[in-house]
Amino acid sequence: MAGDELLFLPLGGSGEIGMNMNLYGFGPPKARRWIMIDCGVLFGDHTTPGIDLICPDPAYILDQKENLLALVLTHGHEDHIGAVALIAPMLDCPVYATPFTAALVRRKLEEAGANIDLRVLDISARFRAGPFDLEFVTLTHSIPEPNGVIVRTPLGTVLHTGDWKIDPEPTLGPVTDDAALRGLGDQGLLAMVCDSTNVLSSGESGSEMRVKESLIELIAAQPARVAVTTFASNVSRVVSICEAAAASDRSVCLLGRSMRRIVEASREVGLLPEKLSFVEPEEAGYLPRDKVLYLCTGSQGEPRAALARIARDDHRDVTLNEGDTVIFSSKIIPGNEREIYSLQNDLVDLGVHVITEKDHFVHVSGHPCRDELKKMYEWARPKYAIPVHGEARHLEAHADFALTLGVKDAIAPRNGDLIRLAPGAPEIIDETPSGRLFLDGALLLPEGSSPLRERRKLSYGGVVTVALAIDDDGDLAAPAAVAIAGAPALDAGGDPIGPALAEAAEEAFGHLARKKRDDDEAVEIAVQRAVRTKMVDLWGKRPIVGVLINRVP
Amino acid sequence: MAGDELLFLPLGGSGEIGMNMNLYGFGPPKARRWIMIDCGVLFGDHTTPGIDLICPDPAYILDQKENLLALVLTHGHEDHIGAVALIAPMLDCPVYATPFTAALVRRKLEEAGANIDLRVLDISARFRAGPFDLEFVTLTHSIPEPNGVIVRTPLGTVLHTGDWKIDPEPTLGPVTDDAALRGLGDQGLLAMVCDSTNVLSSGESGSEMRVKESLIELIAAQPARVAVTTFASNVSRVVSICEAAAASDRSVCLLGRSMRRIVEASREVGLLPEKLSFVEPEEAGYLPRDKVLYLCTGSQGEPRAALARIARDDHRDVTLNEGDTVIFSSKIIPGNEREIYSLQNDLVDLGVHVITEKDHFVHVSGHPCRDELKKMYEWARPKYAIPVHGEARHLEAHADFALTLGVKDAIAPRNGDLIRLAPGAPEIIDETPSGRLFLDGALLLPEGSSPLRERRKLSYGGVVTVALAIDDDGDLAAPAAVAIAGAPALDAGGDPIGPALAEAAEEAFGHLARKKRDDDEAVEIAVQRAVRTKMVDLWGKRPIVGVLINRVP
Repeated sequence: MAGDELLFLPLGGSGEIGMNMNLYGFGPPKARRWIMIDCGVLFGDHTTPGIDLICPDPAYILDQKENLLALVLTHGHEDHIGAVALIAPMLDCPVYATPFTAALVRRKLEEAGANIDLRVLDISARFRAGPFDLEFVTLTHSIPEPNGVIVRTPLGTVLHTGDWKIDPEPTLGPVTDDAALRGLGDQGLLAMVCDSTNVLSSGESGSEMRVKESLIELIAAQPARVAVTTFASNVSRVVSICEAAAASDRSVCLLGRSMRRIVEASREVGLLPEKLSFVEPEEAGYLPRDKVLYLCTGSQGEPRAALARIARDDHRDVTLNEGDTVIFSSKIIPGNEREIYSLQNDLVDLGVHVITEKDHFVHVSGHPCRDELKKMYEWARPKYAIPVHGEARHLEAHADFALTLGVKDAIAPRNGDLIRLAPGAPEIIDETPSGRLFLDGALLLPEGSSPLRERRKLSYGGVVTVALAIDDDGDLAAPAAVAIAGAPALDAGGDPIGPALAEAAEEAFGHLARKKRDDDEAVEIAVQRAVRTKMVDLWGKRPIVGVLINRVP
Repeated sequence: MAGDELLFLPLGGSGEIGMNMNLYGFGPPKARRWIMIDCGVLFGDHTTPGIDLICPDPAYILDQKENLLALVLTHGHEDHIGAVALIAPMLDCPVYATPFTAALVRRKLEEAGANIDLRVLDISARFRAGPFDLEFVTLTHSIPEPNGVIVRTPLGTVLHTGDWKIDPEPTLGPVTDDAALRGLGDQGLLAMVCDSTNVLSSGESGSEMRVKESLIELIAAQPARVAVTTFASNVSRVVSICEAAAASDRSVCLLGRSMRRIVEASREVGLLPEKLSFVEPEEAGYLPRDKVLYLCTGSQGEPRAALARIARDDHRDVTLNEGDTVIFSSKIIPGNEREIYSLQNDLVDLGVHVITEKDHFVHVSGHPCRDELKKMYEWARPKYAIPVHGEARHLEAHADFALTLGVKDAIAPRNGDLIRLAPGAPEIIDETPSGRLFLDGALLLPEGSSPLRERRKLSYGGVVTVALAIDDDGDLAAPAAVAIAGAPALDAGGDPIGPALAEAAEEAFGHLARKKRDDDEAVEIAVQRAVRTKMVDLWGKRPIVGVLINRVP
């Protein structure tokens, strides 16, 4: 139709790793329709104290949700589905997923008490959403059922890869459907919107089969108890570890809620080998030390996960000590170094032998390194490369790399960059509002909202609150009362700080002209300033200072 | 003398990387005398919000400071001298250092307005402190004048290595004095107390000369502006970068206070080649882009350092853009990943080409990898190995490794472990009080003190303070006043939270029996509970709740 355009708009995941959310638009400007691919979260960290989850702000599409035809989920990782229970109920459109992904989403919905129109499709399913002819293409990754999405439109075909690697020998599920990818190349692929996570790494990410072989050998060589920690969602790895345990005649005990949930979800959709069985933690303790393997959560040093509790010798059913082994079949997610090292130190202090990917071949990444990217570009032969799923340094490196692989152009977008893919050469035609929402307690707050900003200040300098009771004559009806939190109670000389602050507050109040004392704001400003100055004197830091006024008869 | 013992006691740095503080004791239990080696800090991080510096608690030695004969500083890194200005004035003993280290310490003392008896010794100096016959032995490291300390006593000789590597071709200062080390082995070395930082890395750390050659080549290949960031204290690297700049006909501009201070201190003690000259930032902007090199602080992503300000396009005199290059001639200190990647992403967003040690040979570590440790053990041939300067995982690995290198025994102590080195086989004979002090503003507070614990809570859940004015009849003389910080002002429905909390507070107060209302504590507890419960209802989180009571007539 005249005026039709094919658009791509990342709202999350382009310029950061995590919280993927992508929109494809089709139609003329006035009758544009959209699909969304993925709806993920980012986990809060020390830069966002008190925030559990962060997700893309979907305001741009919420404002026109009558034009949103579908949410398509590529796979079940949190950075692709973690915001579904929060966001999808507002979107009012069907949500498409393959069985395992759907099983994980269903659990999230139940927990949140949310309800959506979830439609379960087979892998390799082809389905329509308005002008979009969509098809899942089977890839390999570090979770079952990783799907690329082929987006066919009258203006051309786009391959949205989602997360992938090329695992020549996956231990669970099919190999990469390279025939389908080559087919795309043969038919002429307009653009590939592609994972950039590992573009800075040369070579290949490696195969799960090799990890399994290595684990079998390694676990067989351990003399006493073995605990292995890995990402629960990596079901192939979980199965490999179970098989390695069986090969050493060890019973497997699952520790950690997410580990048990993933095993349950995998079993529900028939992914788990029938023969796998597990012992309960309270039984496992009675097994001979060389007959047990604990498979546990906590590879990132999460303080409340099973492994951290074991390391602190604080687990109800599990004790590790001298001669036992813990294998981290995982990588360090950047930012978690201190927590992970601290966990490993605690284990070493118990006399436990700690093995990581630095020592042995116990982990492979789920994202494509450069040789895999090269192969993908050779198969799919897109005219244009749109690197997503990465920080700026990944996206730019991916764009540069793609240009060496024969694409005609490469655009590395940032969240909010609206790209017209067709007609004509792709270009960024607009910057749409984009941003983040923070899940703070039960409330979804906009990025930069004051509670988080204040908490950062509180974490630096604490808070002093002064309460003044002021009578009708403008006099204090009682001594100023002072509460201090997050700041010292005694000064360098050992004198209490509270009374000194109360005195400073009373003095500042006393210096105010009578008529000013009727003005709450004037009182607040004067007292705040005096208390803050006194605190700098006594402590050297500036807390947040609050002033509460009670006007009494 | 009968009853003499030779003791070693780490108070900092054994079980963590940073804040090294070590004591050696000699004499019979009742007339023991001590020396201290090093007095360093650890920098606060996100686990210690609002804390700039952390240092070992010297209480054990302060309690008997009349028996402390000397503080000996091995070299000028912050984790070895950073607490001198805070702690040494309390110790009342002479402080020994070589000229460059002394120049750095002097600057710290001036800043702090502190005064100590600082004695400057030549490198390789031999000096006495009571029963201790002490001698510096020249090593190589990533700062000028790295000294090991030979501690000779009537019960045997100990080599305290401090930080070291074996750089076969240092670009500044002498090579490792291996003759002295072999001499120790020939004479019979009782124990070596040795750096464990890189024991988990195989091979060798590499030479500064190779880095210099690589930098010369790399910088020559850059087309426009070049900025290089490195650790300011690595004066060899600083000089190498200046020489690489000169080789490409670029003028060097120093950015960042610590960079300028180190260059000044190096010049003061004659370490800097005469010919080095620098241009001022305001001039450098007028130079052609391929004629300038900025040498700047900020390799760890410090938000206020020169490089971060450049990356935010917020530096008064310096702008980098498309075609310029930033070289990180540094490593990522674990825990700083997010900050560093964020800085690199900001630079990439400016169009800058970012080069790190992942891409090019632009950095070597200053600590010994396994092949260097092996060589050191072959030279010095200690009977016993005492691994220090590392986390638990490093110390244990070092102890295991030392046992393969011919030592008779290895003890990996933790802070506070008092080891008797002689007479008899070394063993841990006591656990002394040890701990950390936190510099919070201007106050040195004990570890685990309430301000820091409260700030962690505040950073999670914020604070609500309620002020009540209660009259003689036990009635509220005014409505409850509420201050909220670090928590939302509106609930999920958009209604203000403050008034709801005030109402909850008043209701809880109203439910109190009359006679209870005279009891501040009873009022506090009731109101706190009600407000916290209301907040959990409205927000889903539990803030700190303070209650201030004004008793009015």
